[in-house]
Amino acid sequence: MSDLWQSGVVMDESVEACADLCPFFTPEGIVIVGARRSPGFGFILPIALQRQGWGDRLFLVNPAGGELHGLPLYERIADVPGAPDMAVVIVPATVVPQALREIGERGIKHVIIESAGFTEIGERGRALQEEAKSMASRYGIRVIGPNCVGVINTSNRLSTVEVVDEALNPGPVAVIAQSGVFGNILLDGLHQKGLYISKAVTLGNRMDVNECEILTYLHQDPETSLIMMYLEGAADGRLLRGTLDRVTRDKPVLVLKSGRTGSGRQATASHTGSMSGEDELYEAAFRQSGVIRADSLDDLVDMARVFSTQPLPSGKRLGITTSSGSLGALATDAAVKAGLELPPLDPASVERVRSIAPQWMNVRNPLDVGPSGQFLPAMTALLEDPNIDMVLSIAVMPFAVFREFKQRGISVKDWLGSAPELRDLAPHKPVILCSIGDRGFIQDLDEAVGPEVPVLTSPESAARALAALYRYKVMRDARMQDK
Amino acid sequence: MSDLWQSGVVMDESVEACADLCPFFTPEGIVIVGARRSPGFGFILPIALQRQGWGDRLFLVNPAGGELHGLPLYERIADVPGAPDMAVVIVPATVVPQALREIGERGIKHVIIESAGFTEIGERGRALQEEAKSMASRYGIRVIGPNCVGVINTSNRLSTVEVVDEALNPGPVAVIAQSGVFGNILLDGLHQKGLYISKAVTLGNRMDVNECEILTYLHQDPETSLIMMYLEGAADGRLLRGTLDRVTRDKPVLVLKSGRTGSGRQATASHTGSMSGEDELYEAAFRQSGVIRADSLDDLVDMARVFSTQPLPSGKRLGITTSSGSLGALATDAAVKAGLELPPLDPASVERVRSIAPQWMNVRNPLDVGPSGQFLPAMTALLEDPNIDMVLSIAVMPFAVFREFKQRGISVKDWLGSAPELRDLAPHKPVILCSIGDRGFIQDLDEAVGPEVPVLTSPESAARALAALYRYKVMRDARMQDK
Repeated sequence: MSDLWQSGVVMDESVEACADLCPFFTPEGIVIVGARRSPGFGFILPIALQRQGWGDRLFLVNPAGGELHGLPLYERIADVPGAPDMAVVIVPATVVPQALREIGERGIKHVIIESAGFTEIGERGRALQEEAKSMASRYGIRVIGPNCVGVINTSNRLSTVEVVDEALNPGPVAVIAQSGVFGNILLDGLHQKGLYISKAVTLGNRMDVNECEILTYLHQDPETSLIMMYLEGAADGRLLRGTLDRVTRDKPVLVLKSGRTGSGRQATASHTGSMSGEDELYEAAFRQSGVIRADSLDDLVDMARVFSTQPLPSGKRLGITTSSGSLGALATDAAVKAGLELPPLDPASVERVRSIAPQWMNVRNPLDVGPSGQFLPAMTALLEDPNIDMVLSIAVMPFAVFREFKQRGISVKDWLGSAPELRDLAPHKPVILCSIGDRGFIQDLDEAVGPEVPVLTSPESAARALAALYRYKVMRDARMQDK
Repeated sequence: MSDLWQSGVVMDESVEACADLCPFFTPEGIVIVGARRSPGFGFILPIALQRQGWGDRLFLVNPAGGELHGLPLYERIADVPGAPDMAVVIVPATVVPQALREIGERGIKHVIIESAGFTEIGERGRALQEEAKSMASRYGIRVIGPNCVGVINTSNRLSTVEVVDEALNPGPVAVIAQSGVFGNILLDGLHQKGLYISKAVTLGNRMDVNECEILTYLHQDPETSLIMMYLEGAADGRLLRGTLDRVTRDKPVLVLKSGRTGSGRQATASHTGSMSGEDELYEAAFRQSGVIRADSLDDLVDMARVFSTQPLPSGKRLGITTSSGSLGALATDAAVKAGLELPPLDPASVERVRSIAPQWMNVRNPLDVGPSGQFLPAMTALLEDPNIDMVLSIAVMPFAVFREFKQRGISVKDWLGSAPELRDLAPHKPVILCSIGDRGFIQDLDEAVGPEVPVLTSPESAARALAALYRYKVMRDARMQDK
């Protein structure tokens, strides 16, 4: 068994340590050590923070002095006025220990180190990281990084991550990414999939602050209701298991973990210096602690969309309505493989649908309405069916039909009905949509149903996301009884 | 064992029967039985065929007579002039046998029946389908359908499927879809993913023409180099296995098969009247006959993109370059799980990359170039490395960097280099790109690399698609030796 899972005591003090992380997310003032005129993050970050409204609490440091973006460049950290309580370090790795000393002397206790060139590059980097760690420790400095891009807090529009502005629109999803680049790129795209975030943290090499402390912080964060995490390896396996066990009782945690294979583990070692350990141990730890593990990045995103918008189902009985029998069959296969059931519909629902259905329609589950136009009544019948705990509605339309509808002034909304009303029919049942085909139709559908009902584009992934929702509920209920 | 796999003799005559299908794809003239003024396919199809240039070879039949879209409506099929050799039937199911009689009397031997309401609705429909089948048989009529939307041939812009015009731009991919709606919707979206088709056929209930005859036809079609198939069940299991075995020696066949689970099989039974049979039998038949089976619709599309653009690799040694270590690790895991290897790079490649790489870069496989900007040299080194049989390049860029590049007039193409040139470096090695994040960047990347190198958006699916390409090559080679 790997050392990773035997080392250390389960450190419950991490709960108390949590308040200690606040200045990372709600600083009074920010010092950027390594602001500069040449291209790179030292140039872009001050602009971004000014745009986000931090200009009056921003202090730039560069030995060259002068001005940058209309702000003075202080030559030494000691020269910075006021009471900044957080620093972002973007200087070459070799200079980082000295920068930490000066930051410590200035009384700043929270530092994000963006610089790379530490444990991830091998022995030489490891020594440098140890030196930096000692320095931070000497001054009682908490460090996020190195080799990261820092944090986001959408509630005060703080972002040291250079994301698009739309990514800063607040939402309920917190993101923990071990890697800076990956976190940045993931966040660049999430808003385009209807996912809005509360907080985000890129951990990098985890010289000090690790995923467990962040998880505990997010557990207590009232703005976060769901946590998405990309992990290459645990800083401390037992600690992670204990932390996840606590957090998932209240908030779902979705994890994408690389290093499933030997080659994958080697890749993570040279990336964030992570010792991934055997995948089976992670698999077991995740299962025992109520974590939902995603099999792919696409599944992680689809699950997040479903978890962040839908209530937990009371059982595993899935109802499917579809305007394509084939897609209904594919979703059915994926749902059953993932542990859901497709029970027969209640006789009253069958009768109700049959009364409005054309002769050729098979009134069963999955319910293929074909081109009957009875999509909305079918969906309503399933939402109100006592045999059904959750509904997946696959809404596709040949482009030619869509175009004809549009030309006649009939919108997707007219065809589908209003999603908020559908929600009211069965507020406790998860309901999601799925569509494929022409992008224009999918976009119209997305707008028609609004943010309450996600429109996914993979029937299999949609079914798996609903199965994950059910699995989370079962795990949480079982662990609640154990309490 | 299911009857499906024991029934019948392997009918090699299907090869000869193939020429018999030509009028479906290259008719001299088309009769639409059931053209009408009210909304529906009987109204839309004549417009579409006129737009596609078939107006002068199009004959509309409706007992009401008069005119439609500027064409005469013949009251009886017997009244149709000229020598049309194909008919599309869009009348209520109960009238179909009579329509077939009149079509037979008129001497037309090829009929697409779009009407639904046959075996897929149960006993009553089954009797009707038998009656129609007898009638067709009496007149020697070949039938595609019923319960389908017919065929597409992009080389003469024939389409009875109501797809967008862009879907009719010719390409090398043939599509067989058992279901009409699904086929239609799939085709609506493929061109937006860079997939262009040669022929497409929706089979519906397969009263007569089945997937085996179509496969044989496509095998001989010079415009088709790859076949994508969605299947709910085989018409004849042994025949299918034999046909696939022949076709896949020359052209890859990618299959998405539903009915993996009991509930999924029930769904297909009531959709196209298919008896799916046990999934294990299909799995074995596909493996033995060199078919690549996709696990999901997304995987099917990604594989088609890779198979339709890339050469077969000479071995299973994958090289990965990436600007995100995390995505590199995820792709590595998926590749190794799917049977590929990530060997060490050749010492000469290592030296070459090291000479231009910053100190922090780990020169290994996967090769994480991070923000070094050395994406193109790294990709070139892997393409020229004798230890590497194929290359996956994961190109991501934080939106802020992308925006800065754009503002300075630096395009993605400048950053990445030109893909056709990259192709020339190693014409026999598959190379694909993968990207995630902001949609704008992905679109620019797609345009920059051109149609020769697909840009996929799932690192795991991209790795699986390359593994499938290798698997196809191995199966084909093994079966060639057996000859």
